[in-house]
Amino acid sequence: MKKLPDIKTHFPDWYNQVIYDAQLTDQSPVRGSIIIRPYGYALWENIKSIMDEKIKRTGHHNVAFPLLIPESFLKREADHIEGFAPELAVVTHAGGKKLEEPLVVRPTSETIIHYMFAKWIKSWRDLPIKINQWANVIRWELRPRPFLRTTEFFWQEGHTAHATKDEAQTEVLTMLKEYIDLAHNYLAIPVVSGLKSESEKFPGAEKTYTFEALMQDGKALQMGTSHFLSQNFAKAFNMQFQNEKGELAYPWLTSWGVTTRLIGAVVMVHGDQKGLVLPPKIAPIQVVIIPIFKSGTDAQNKVLGTVSEVFEKLKVKGVRVHIDDDRHKTPGAKFYEWELKGVPIRLEIGPKDVEKNQVMMVDRLGNKMPVSLDVIIANVAHRLEEFQNELFKRAQKNMQESWHKGEKLAQFGPDLEKKGGLYQTGWCQDPNCEIELKKYKASTRCLLDKAEFKACFHCGKPSKTDVIVARAY
Amino acid sequence: MKKLPDIKTHFPDWYNQVIYDAQLTDQSPVRGSIIIRPYGYALWENIKSIMDEKIKRTGHHNVAFPLLIPESFLKREADHIEGFAPELAVVTHAGGKKLEEPLVVRPTSETIIHYMFAKWIKSWRDLPIKINQWANVIRWELRPRPFLRTTEFFWQEGHTAHATKDEAQTEVLTMLKEYIDLAHNYLAIPVVSGLKSESEKFPGAEKTYTFEALMQDGKALQMGTSHFLSQNFAKAFNMQFQNEKGELAYPWLTSWGVTTRLIGAVVMVHGDQKGLVLPPKIAPIQVVIIPIFKSGTDAQNKVLGTVSEVFEKLKVKGVRVHIDDDRHKTPGAKFYEWELKGVPIRLEIGPKDVEKNQVMMVDRLGNKMPVSLDVIIANVAHRLEEFQNELFKRAQKNMQESWHKGEKLAQFGPDLEKKGGLYQTGWCQDPNCEIELKKYKASTRCLLDKAEFKACFHCGKPSKTDVIVARAY
Repeated sequence: MKKLPDIKTHFPDWYNQVIYDAQLTDQSPVRGSIIIRPYGYALWENIKSIMDEKIKRTGHHNVAFPLLIPESFLKREADHIEGFAPELAVVTHAGGKKLEEPLVVRPTSETIIHYMFAKWIKSWRDLPIKINQWANVIRWELRPRPFLRTTEFFWQEGHTAHATKDEAQTEVLTMLKEYIDLAHNYLAIPVVSGLKSESEKFPGAEKTYTFEALMQDGKALQMGTSHFLSQNFAKAFNMQFQNEKGELAYPWLTSWGVTTRLIGAVVMVHGDQKGLVLPPKIAPIQVVIIPIFKSGTDAQNKVLGTVSEVFEKLKVKGVRVHIDDDRHKTPGAKFYEWELKGVPIRLEIGPKDVEKNQVMMVDRLGNKMPVSLDVIIANVAHRLEEFQNELFKRAQKNMQESWHKGEKLAQFGPDLEKKGGLYQTGWCQDPNCEIELKKYKASTRCLLDKAEFKACFHCGKPSKTDVIVARAY
Repeated sequence: MKKLPDIKTHFPDWYNQVIYDAQLTDQSPVRGSIIIRPYGYALWENIKSIMDEKIKRTGHHNVAFPLLIPESFLKREADHIEGFAPELAVVTHAGGKKLEEPLVVRPTSETIIHYMFAKWIKSWRDLPIKINQWANVIRWELRPRPFLRTTEFFWQEGHTAHATKDEAQTEVLTMLKEYIDLAHNYLAIPVVSGLKSESEKFPGAEKTYTFEALMQDGKALQMGTSHFLSQNFAKAFNMQFQNEKGELAYPWLTSWGVTTRLIGAVVMVHGDQKGLVLPPKIAPIQVVIIPIFKSGTDAQNKVLGTVSEVFEKLKVKGVRVHIDDDRHKTPGAKFYEWELKGVPIRLEIGPKDVEKNQVMMVDRLGNKMPVSLDVIIANVAHRLEEFQNELFKRAQKNMQESWHKGEKLAQFGPDLEKKGGLYQTGWCQDPNCEIELKKYKASTRCLLDKAEFKACFHCGKPSKTDVIVARAY
């Protein structure tokens, strides 16, 4: 296996190689689609199960809607079709015949779900409806990048309908908060959150909230979004109900989603020159045990005995633990492989360790210490917790150091383009000023609830709120 | 809500109405596709999590492969494309342009997975590969029926590659055994299993094992299949590896799957005139608690206190329990609704019950008894277990009573056509005799490991093995 490209100087190459070498994915023969291999899928399953628990705990139910949607459905909401038309994959033939109406492979499911909402919502008693699906969607991408931007991707899409505007707005913010908790406390990724600008919001939404993270190359990544759809789709799909006063009203809708892009974020925020670095809460393997002995020696049985004893104890405690007992590989080759795969803790157990009633505990950040067998279980648990926190703090420090404040785009633009980072500045919210950011390959990422800046970064007119601008994936 | 059609005389109508009334599904605007509603999806999630655990325990890893497959891939294996061509949905346009090569929406994923196997399998050390994906597939159906036969359906598809024929054959039987365990011990559905005939096997396989169940209308339902693909696909995809002797060899492949059809099977095997009857191990709600009181009375608080106490105790024990405290519905309407939805146990708690320190436990089969609050938790757990077993025994009895033996098709054919049931008979294995079954709308379901019959059901020539014939979904 060849060495990884330099993460400091060749970040995109480093990314492309590390995701293949660590076997998260492989190149697919289908343009823009990816294959998620067992190690990558196990990582996704862990993220998914945390998010699924949050979705259910907040009162949502999982469902499944059709993959194929009549083209006419998408056309009912003007902004929606305008936004998605260039990215659609279209089924024109099926069962050996040309279809009367083409079917699009869903790029998102608002339209078909709202069509059904219109059937289901007749009275205020039918509300709220709070559903979610874990699904695959297709958006034809011109410049696909594994996990970050692929033609097919996996996601959850939540869709809700409410009797009042207040309730819908609360829902949008509740799910945004759950997403931020997922990012901070599980993915160990600090984020900045707020509203998207008009030009960056979801096609058909009134408001889109985003949460964005900073990658190690200084680019921002949109991690997920929560949309206040207002009544646009409700009107487009003729979704009326009788409210408590007996009047006909349109429900207030929301939708929100996170995707397999989160895998890319974890790689790009935590990885280092040796490979992936995975937060313990989502790592497919939290602890790898490497027995070290010469075959056929007396020590062999003793080492293997201790190895399986430690393995069983950790397993019982719910630790995701793996023994690498491949006899065709040297311990050094194993260290290399599991570092590449980002396993948080490695336990080395050799004859001398057994004699001393200890194991050597090495974490993925390079800290190494002998731990007595008597306290190994508690120590591993404690170290996993600390490791999780350290990753978050490290990422937070990086974000803080790369969070700049700038008054004039003409002044901070060149640095932004060259070195990246998040730039907090003022904005009048005129799209014509927003377009100026393109000169530096940047865009508005999210509006802040702050107003430290008085004037717009470009035109100098009064700023409405501060905004984060950055180069982005 | 209108009464369900008579299950004895109008089984198909009963089925179509019960799945909508119990809110497992709803009709979709997309031809042949279904919408799985929260209650149906929760049932599927329970089935899925049991099967997923089995798949992982037997050493398989979950993955994700692309939805869209180049048309040319399917053509590499002649039988495969012949079998699937009439059912394909084809994407011809994407991103606003006509595609150079059309992409089919996967009807199954052997071809794209085997394409990758050819990249991954270079040496015997790369084997076995044992992967699985939970995915949606599309097969254009002319006569769709919800859950049983839909254009889009959900399934798991396992795909494995082995260095030896023996190992692949063992794999095929191991997964068949896991499926039978799923059917018997979780779905409470007795099955008969064995090889499919040549004409009924999977396109491209050397052997297909099936497991089949009997529905209450006397028709058989194929519940799932496990295929020994032999080396056909390996040759089609040029999948060669160096074996332990250093020679080039083709790996031996298998694939196996079960689908959302299992939901239909559960409905059709256990349901009754009042609606669904769900096995506790997969029921989304195992116990529903119905508080009974007059609003504003002293009794109200006492009843609600007991209700929440019982709820909490059951929840802690891991029971899937729900309180129906809808104040707009009468207890009678609630009884009706939860019977329709097939909840195994209902607990009624009224003022008199609280006085007597008891609750009224009613199971979905109609057994009713007061249970002291002191032993309610143990009693519910015990009753759920018994209920699960009773459903299996009841279905087993029905299957045994409908399992007939017949020597000559001309004699048993009319009864088979009229009353349904499974017919065990002898068969020479000539496809020309198999075709005769069509006269009675029947087909061979599976070959048995028995030879009770000496002669073929049609031509009278020597029988090779016994076979089960039946009308089928």
